[in-house]
Amino acid sequence: MGVIAFAASGALAAVRKRLDLFGMAVLACATALGGGIVRDLLIGRTPPAAFTNLTYLYAALITALILYFIAPSRRLTKGPLEVADAIGLGLFCVTGTVIAYHAGLAAPTAALLGMTTAIGGGVLRDVLTGEVPSVLRPDQDLYAIPALFGAAATATLLHFDLYRAWTGLLAAAGAIGFRLLARHYQWHAPLARHARD
Amino acid sequence: MGVIAFAASGALAAVRKRLDLFGMAVLACATALGGGIVRDLLIGRTPPAAFTNLTYLYAALITALILYFIAPSRRLTKGPLEVADAIGLGLFCVTGTVIAYHAGLAAPTAALLGMTTAIGGGVLRDVLTGEVPSVLRPDQDLYAIPALFGAAATATLLHFDLYRAWTGLLAAAGAIGFRLLARHYQWHAPLARHARD
Amino acid sequence: MGVIAFAASGALAAVRKRLDLFGMAVLACATALGGGIVRDLLIGRTPPAAFTNLTYLYAALITALILYFIAPSRRLTKGPLEVADAIGLGLFCVTGTVIAYHAGLAAPTAALLGMTTAIGGGVLRDVLTGEVPSVLRPDQDLYAIPALFGAAATATLLHFDLYRAWTGLLAAAGAIGFRLLARHYQWHAPLARHARD
Repeated sequence: MGVIAFAASGALAAVRKRLDLFGMAVLACATALGGGIVRDLLIGRTPPAAFTNLTYLYAALITALILYFIAPSRRLTKGPLEVADAIGLGLFCVTGTVIAYHAGLAAPTAALLGMTTAIGGGVLRDVLTGEVPSVLRPDQDLYAIPALFGAAATATLLHFDLYRAWTGLLAAAGAIGFRLLARHYQWHAPLARHARD
Repeated sequence: MGVIAFAASGALAAVRKRLDLFGMAVLACATALGGGIVRDLLIGRTPPAAFTNLTYLYAALITALILYFIAPSRRLTKGPLEVADAIGLGLFCVTGTVIAYHAGLAAPTAALLGMTTAIGGGVLRDVLTGEVPSVLRPDQDLYAIPALFGAAATATLLHFDLYRAWTGLLAAAGAIGFRLLARHYQWHAPLARHARD
Repeated sequence: MGVIAFAASGALAAVRKRLDLFGMAVLACATALGGGIVRDLLIGRTPPAAFTNLTYLYAALITALILYFIAPSRRLTKGPLEVADAIGLGLFCVTGTVIAYHAGLAAPTAALLGMTTAIGGGVLRDVLTGEVPSVLRPDQDLYAIPALFGAAATATLLHFDLYRAWTGLLAAAGAIGFRLLARHYQWHAPLARHARD
């Protein structure tokens, strides 16, 4: 579900940039799978999981194909897509942290890699379309911080040996809720004081 | 030959962007070797082949150096350069697929990595010069699709144990011919319907 | 010290681009640690050193935090920052070369990876802020060439088994001096002749 939401965000970014069908497929895959691939490269798990388990790849490609034929009205999809994207963010930051932790990384770096898993695909999408990554831009609602929050919670649970299926889901739910609140109330990270004026 | 054509495309992109000699050398190497390096990282072959067999690196550097001293007239080189580039594309997509397949990847992902080998260098060149990668732009003739075609043919041959030197060359020739036809007849990938108007 | 100078350059680039606190932290880390991470990926040392020894990560984060609260006057910091940056450049190109060489790479590629260690973080910073990497731009003073010089000297020392703590420091000092001279006298790499007019 997160994969589909991420793939849709990539494919729609391609449409906005007036890229063709091939560009849509590439950006859908890069957005949906990019974060996990970067994480796997950094922990030395090669080939990355996205290349050995093809389910996610096919899901991303099918999403791009559907969006090629059907132009969903923006009003209709905006809400559901953002919820799905938040769910993807929450699940990816937790699973990414768990995978990095079990690969032998210390808790703080495992949390960083969990956040990378969740936001890396979006960064790749933005670099490939020639934009400054949206997670870095101050005009965007908080996106990486909820992911970091969920990843840090997961790493803490793992560190104190409290990670269970339900505590992990709780951490994911926290990240999802945080992200949706940030979206709704338009929370922003602060600018450096001297850059404000 | 493909390496030289790719290196020339990188060095000439550097000249167009008014980069200096160092920028020409970096872009020549990135374009010529980038695709293979990314592929090797993804299949876990470290250090990448480009760092253990230095022939290609030197070929790319010498190409950049020659283009630094001699400004070939655009009219004279355009044709030969494009043919050489197509040959590089065809050969790289086949060898990339074979290497990925022998590294234990399944046929579909081996084909994807074969395409990555062929087009990755160009993507790196465009990201480093601050452009949207030309393979994603709809105003360009088909470039990645011929590479994907050659890679998929190679993966199919490998999967059914039909890969021989001559069938591999046939797949490469198919990709090269496809690319040259796309160039000549200016084939484009379709835009999503809703982006057309 | 080099890490702090590099992190400061990343955080200040973020401020210039009007990114928020999170963007400052990400760019500080990417600039300070990016070169070493790319080198470690290429020689197959996973997870990268930046993820197992967290000192540098914390140094980069604290630097970003300090620059968030305090806007140092440009006139006051420009000189010291550039000297610190040159020192970082000199030390990184030497240690990067040594690490790559001991990972089994040949001397020429070890030198290339040493240079990559020194300049890779800055390239990552520029790609993430949507700029053409400053090391490639002809309006910048020589930056990569001093790093390549220091790396090549180190690789030569290693190759002839003459690398000692003091000869290594000498190579670093050479790179640092070269960089500071290039800065002071505004040395530039030459443009290709045909691009000049």
